[in-house]
Amino acid sequence: MTKEIGITVKKSDDFSEWYTQCVLKSSIADYSPSKGFIILRPYGYAIWEIVKELLDCELKKTGHKNGFLPVLIPESLLTKEKDHFDGFMPEVFWVTKSGDSDLDEKLAVRPTSETLAYSMFSKWISSYRDLPLKLNFWNSALRAEIKSTKPLIRNSEFLWQEGHTAHDDENGADKEVRMILDIYKNLIEEFLALPTLSGFKTDKEKFVGANYTTCLESIMADGKALQMATSHNLGQNFSKPFEIKFLNKETVEQYVWQTSWGISWRVIGAIIMVHGDDKGLILPPKIAPTQVIIVPIYKDDSKTVVKQKAFELEQILIDSKIRAQTDDRDEYTSGWKFNDWEMKGVPLRINMGLRDMKENQVEFVRRDTKERFYVKEKELVNQVMSTLEDIQSNMFDRAESHFQANIRSASTLDELLSVLDTAGGFVACSWCGKRECEDLIKEKTTADIRIVPFSPKNNISACIGCGEGETKEVYFGRAY
Amino acid sequence: MTKEIGITVKKSDDFSEWYTQCVLKSSIADYSPSKGFIILRPYGYAIWEIVKELLDCELKKTGHKNGFLPVLIPESLLTKEKDHFDGFMPEVFWVTKSGDSDLDEKLAVRPTSETLAYSMFSKWISSYRDLPLKLNFWNSALRAEIKSTKPLIRNSEFLWQEGHTAHDDENGADKEVRMILDIYKNLIEEFLALPTLSGFKTDKEKFVGANYTTCLESIMADGKALQMATSHNLGQNFSKPFEIKFLNKETVEQYVWQTSWGISWRVIGAIIMVHGDDKGLILPPKIAPTQVIIVPIYKDDSKTVVKQKAFELEQILIDSKIRAQTDDRDEYTSGWKFNDWEMKGVPLRINMGLRDMKENQVEFVRRDTKERFYVKEKELVNQVMSTLEDIQSNMFDRAESHFQANIRSASTLDELLSVLDTAGGFVACSWCGKRECEDLIKEKTTADIRIVPFSPKNNISACIGCGEGETKEVYFGRAY
Repeated sequence: MTKEIGITVKKSDDFSEWYTQCVLKSSIADYSPSKGFIILRPYGYAIWEIVKELLDCELKKTGHKNGFLPVLIPESLLTKEKDHFDGFMPEVFWVTKSGDSDLDEKLAVRPTSETLAYSMFSKWISSYRDLPLKLNFWNSALRAEIKSTKPLIRNSEFLWQEGHTAHDDENGADKEVRMILDIYKNLIEEFLALPTLSGFKTDKEKFVGANYTTCLESIMADGKALQMATSHNLGQNFSKPFEIKFLNKETVEQYVWQTSWGISWRVIGAIIMVHGDDKGLILPPKIAPTQVIIVPIYKDDSKTVVKQKAFELEQILIDSKIRAQTDDRDEYTSGWKFNDWEMKGVPLRINMGLRDMKENQVEFVRRDTKERFYVKEKELVNQVMSTLEDIQSNMFDRAESHFQANIRSASTLDELLSVLDTAGGFVACSWCGKRECEDLIKEKTTADIRIVPFSPKNNISACIGCGEGETKEVYFGRAY
Repeated sequence: MTKEIGITVKKSDDFSEWYTQCVLKSSIADYSPSKGFIILRPYGYAIWEIVKELLDCELKKTGHKNGFLPVLIPESLLTKEKDHFDGFMPEVFWVTKSGDSDLDEKLAVRPTSETLAYSMFSKWISSYRDLPLKLNFWNSALRAEIKSTKPLIRNSEFLWQEGHTAHDDENGADKEVRMILDIYKNLIEEFLALPTLSGFKTDKEKFVGANYTTCLESIMADGKALQMATSHNLGQNFSKPFEIKFLNKETVEQYVWQTSWGISWRVIGAIIMVHGDDKGLILPPKIAPTQVIIVPIYKDDSKTVVKQKAFELEQILIDSKIRAQTDDRDEYTSGWKFNDWEMKGVPLRINMGLRDMKENQVEFVRRDTKERFYVKEKELVNQVMSTLEDIQSNMFDRAESHFQANIRSASTLDELLSVLDTAGGFVACSWCGKRECEDLIKEKTTADIRIVPFSPKNNISACIGCGEGETKEVYFGRAY
């Protein structure tokens, strides 16, 4: 592999350029001709399909059903909840024409579907028997991003799911919000091997139109914070303007309580940022489209027999539900293949040549630790399984160490600024809860309150902004 | 179930109204606030998910990979292949603003993705080693429909898949086009229980930008024709303007040969139209989200024990991979439930009460034939499986009889018109191949040439239009 084909910068030297090269060169994604938009190539889409399948299964288990909503939303619907509209308005794409004709009413290209979904909820819900209504939509959302776009992290269109539920009381909505956040947290930690912190957004940072927003926040390898998923309690803020009412068992008319929540392909960006190294991606086995790549090593005279053996092993692994693949391309050298699969982040490589065959063994090469060792053929399936498990837990442990090491604290504004400038990460501070202080700190440090943790460490002192008042522990960070 | 809840017209009396009621009342779909757009509700989406999964599996087996393309396409790309653009232009939705700002260049909301996909193909393809490139995209397409919209059949946005491939020679593209059509045909006949005819579109009716289009055509219960799927050979019509070139093994530069193909949620509309009856939908077991509905019949004193037994049977069926569900809602009567599940088209209903339990039996009620019979509990799984198989094949046979009975022939224009007016369906005629004759017949009968069959019956006579020339057999029909 020539220099231009592999990753040409170190992760520690130029993180941003390293990330972009990882995304493009490993064939995860590519730029679309329209500025701010990207295309997900098969390798990236295969990761998304696995993540989607895992989450979809959990959502169905917990009683959610999928549906489809149109991508175009009439302006009159979008404006019905004022805060919501004001929040999204600057980044909405508008359809104003069809063919050569002007439309009577502008249509928004879906920035999110609350308004459209809830205009339907009011038709579908009339009795307590219709509740809870728990729907989910796998689609894309569009928000015009003009500055600092970054593939998978910030684009004008992104793949996600949006869940929308309606409940017969506030408690039902509260429970739903937390259950969904737990499902997200389990998905992200257990399968994506990414540690996260759970908590609330401040009123300033919450979803426009929500009573409160809960979220999962993580820290990338460069110390910047990344929001991984959000789950909102909408209270009756939408059910009132959209008149989503039901008759309860006592035949009293009430407005429903609602939630909405989403997770996007951004998590693929986080996997790359957190786990990758100078050679490229390192994918957690549980979400790697190819978990094991088998590279047969042969000369012209041993080609047939070695390839045949490789396919045999591949089949044995596939029969054990392991996503294995053989790279038998003659037009590339073994060395080129090694580099290519390393860049793509396949967790485990198996090398095998004629000599190995005679010894009834193959060589394992771990992507995470670069360890190499021989495994007897009869041990193949067990060894692959245990090695993949080991890689998965090692990757989480490594990420968790980095995560914990990047949670610091500060008790003055100067200290906060200095920690942010030298190390980044999350900085635990005491905050009085006032918007003025939040704004002041943002102005002086360019950091936001990323999260108000569910489980604070409670090292409470005076507010880092005004030095006054009753305070709570919040985590500041500079974010993507 | 009151009259207003069930279907209130007969299929034979007012087919169009019957169809709309079937779609809306069975909770398949609903109208969106934007004219021409519909929403797919969970029951409809669940059918789409099953169809999608079946097709996706076949496409992956034959080497296709999924990806994601943005929904917005710059005008300059869309106009690059002139015929293609002229064909789609009248029905394109245009984004002209983001927030309050006018865009520099208009963006089309995806009517189809050839141009966007192929602008990327030219980046991704440089050598014979990159070919064939076989990609597929599960997304939605938008085409402004102002008149005669019909849920699932003709809407301004529809769910579909679009496949796009590039090959190193013409033969590769030809083979792909036919392989895909065979995959579609098998899906539609084997799983949707709908008979189809395979053949070519005429030059007038082919996809704008294609060398030729192959298609599957079917006949609905009202005698109207419905296009079920298309597979196009694009030749080098796109590879030349988009400069998709590769070096072959002899290092000679060549343009690729291409195909594109798609199938949409319209097939769900066809299932309803062909199989449904006065009581509502009848779903083929292979694509029914609920294959078996168990209705426990109880009074207050037998409630617990009967419900428990129902859930036991449900679990036994689920363990045998049968999509079974128990309707244990206390707030509805058994009679209401029977009507509701009949309207939704669940292929097999199982009734069971206390008396049945004592006899170790349950009652089967077939949706297709309305047959009822008792089955011993120990025979449950076998009997369910064989009954579902029998329903599936019976449904295809019934549809096939209707299909064959609605293929007629005509040798004069008057005869054609009379058959179309009295019976509809396909009318086999001889045609000289000239556009003038095709246009003339359309003008006089409002019928198109739906298909030039791969396997004509070859009852060739003079052209039905001009009475002259060498002719081939084509099928006329009035279409949705």
